[in-house]
Amino acid sequence: MAKYMDVHEGMHGITAEGLLAAHQADLDIQGSEGVDFQHAWADPESGMVWCVSEAPSAEAVQRIHERAGHPATRVFPVPVEA
Amino acid sequence: MAKYMDVHEGMHGITAEGLLAAHQADLDIQGSEGVDFQHAWADPESGMVWCVSEAPSAEAVQRIHERAGHPATRVFPVPVEA
Repeated sequence: MAKYMDVHEGMHGITAEGLLAAHQADLDIQGSEGVDFQHAWADPESGMVWCVSEAPSAEAVQRIHERAGHPATRVFPVPVEA
Repeated sequence: MAKYMDVHEGMHGITAEGLLAAHQADLDIQGSEGVDFQHAWADPESGMVWCVSEAPSAEAVQRIHERAGHPATRVFPVPVEA
């Protein structure tokens, strides 16, 4: 398992309820890929969303996001934290 | 106080020690601007670094990063979380 930061662009106007629903849609199916989504942050004005997860691979993170209907723009490994 | 996500580009090859030192440089002076840096994640390969903070403004976040010698590429408010 490794840590990942994924970035979504174009989510302009996302609400607290919308982010919660999107995050829950990930949580509902993440077990099938061994992914653990830990936190999500959104800026409705720029349309940016960031998610931190632990997962077996970046591809596993993206597969969950795709199946949940909101593919990430990019998924980055983040092996370094402080 | 509000939550912010700031993004640094071009930090290729950043090490755990390097991120820790950069983060500590922020922590050492953050009080002067009322900023609370909470966590940082880095991808040495792409050179991307993300920091989450609580702060009075995006400008306060950037002033700390600038004074610590590593200005952010962008600072986003993240009023929505899940």
